[in-house]
Amino acid sequence: MLIQSIMYPDFTTMDLIGAQQTLSMLPGARIECVARQTGPVMTDAGVALVAEKSFHTASRSPDIILVPGGRVSSINVLEDDETVEFVARQGGAAAWVCSVCSGALLLGMAGLLQGYRAASHWSVIETLDAFGAIPTHQRVVIDRNRATGGGVTAGVDFGLTLAGVIAGEDYAKVLELAIEYNPQPPFGTGHPSIADAATLSRARPVIEDGVSPDRIRAIALGRKRHN
Amino acid sequence: MLIQSIMYPDFTTMDLIGAQQTLSMLPGARIECVARQTGPVMTDAGVALVAEKSFHTASRSPDIILVPGGRVSSINVLEDDETVEFVARQGGAAAWVCSVCSGALLLGMAGLLQGYRAASHWSVIETLDAFGAIPTHQRVVIDRNRATGGGVTAGVDFGLTLAGVIAGEDYAKVLELAIEYNPQPPFGTGHPSIADAATLSRARPVIEDGVSPDRIRAIALGRKRHN
Repeated sequence: MLIQSIMYPDFTTMDLIGAQQTLSMLPGARIECVARQTGPVMTDAGVALVAEKSFHTASRSPDIILVPGGRVSSINVLEDDETVEFVARQGGAAAWVCSVCSGALLLGMAGLLQGYRAASHWSVIETLDAFGAIPTHQRVVIDRNRATGGGVTAGVDFGLTLAGVIAGEDYAKVLELAIEYNPQPPFGTGHPSIADAATLSRARPVIEDGVSPDRIRAIALGRKRHN
Repeated sequence: MLIQSIMYPDFTTMDLIGAQQTLSMLPGARIECVARQTGPVMTDAGVALVAEKSFHTASRSPDIILVPGGRVSSINVLEDDETVEFVARQGGAAAWVCSVCSGALLLGMAGLLQGYRAASHWSVIETLDAFGAIPTHQRVVIDRNRATGGGVTAGVDFGLTLAGVIAGEDYAKVLELAIEYNPQPPFGTGHPSIADAATLSRARPVIEDGVSPDRIRAIALGRKRHN
């Protein structure tokens, strides 16, 4: 089973790895990391990950495509036609079309979420409707063959949930034990619905730096006009 | 503030990234990924991460050293003298000496946990006493300037907790919101203390493949004799 991870500059490392850590443990799993060019792709956590295939040499029929999110990088990539077209082509061929965090925007831009329920990072999820998707406030959403996770750490829940669907719950339970997923968030501020007002107000400039819902909607509108 | 991540072949990607994703967002943070040689280091999740510095060119006085764990790789590395000596030297200079998961074994082998309380992956934690450490069954343990996390996903809790100590709780709360750490483990089997018996029994061959507590204790014993 070929899992194709699609990388772009400054994506959020954890979005990808949280899911890939368990998906790579599925029986017969093989990971193929892909980017515009082969070689190192810098991420937002200060470490580069290596793309072994380019868009030209990537396998044409992956079983799973997995698109991570990012900060402003996940919006900038919406204007990169080559990446959007690659995602559209691969998504049309894959058995499972997946994203974590704001990676859902790229699936949407590629026309892959039209009429589908989808999750995303809380700061951008409402903009998914601009791509014809149905914003769904859950940590993991599976709608037919579209599987999407919420923000950053939701990639862990996403990977385990999809592992359960693909390989059965008994095996996914073992994976959850293997990665010691018995979380104890130290502060209890991990979502706007539970965070205190002071944290929410301090978060706005950090989270929204360059991540403008208006810009996302404008890009989505441009796409529709163009098509 | 220089955070030095120490990588070795086939380490567990998520151990490192779960922590590094938030630590890299600390004010003034700079990440330096180090390995025996510069270049790609393959990990257990099917993707290579790039070491930008070798043991010879790495900064000599990092503020934080961070050692990830692995499966059998984290035991094999205990017998790699060059890596053990590098960790010992850097640990002696760093303000914070840190590990996630079975990375604590490497800190122990380097003599850095003598008399310290430490966390590790549930499958190996009891062997920490062979290195003079005090096995501590918590998701995150901070004892003076040693900060250690439990298995794999505990790196997220570890990173946020350490961020709170270094940059203050108000900022760490924002980070927890930024990475949407509002976890919902799908199966509730993430620790032996909560997993059902069938999952525990199915997990043994998966988890313990090559990860033998007896071998760890024998390596620790060899170290003591040698010193």
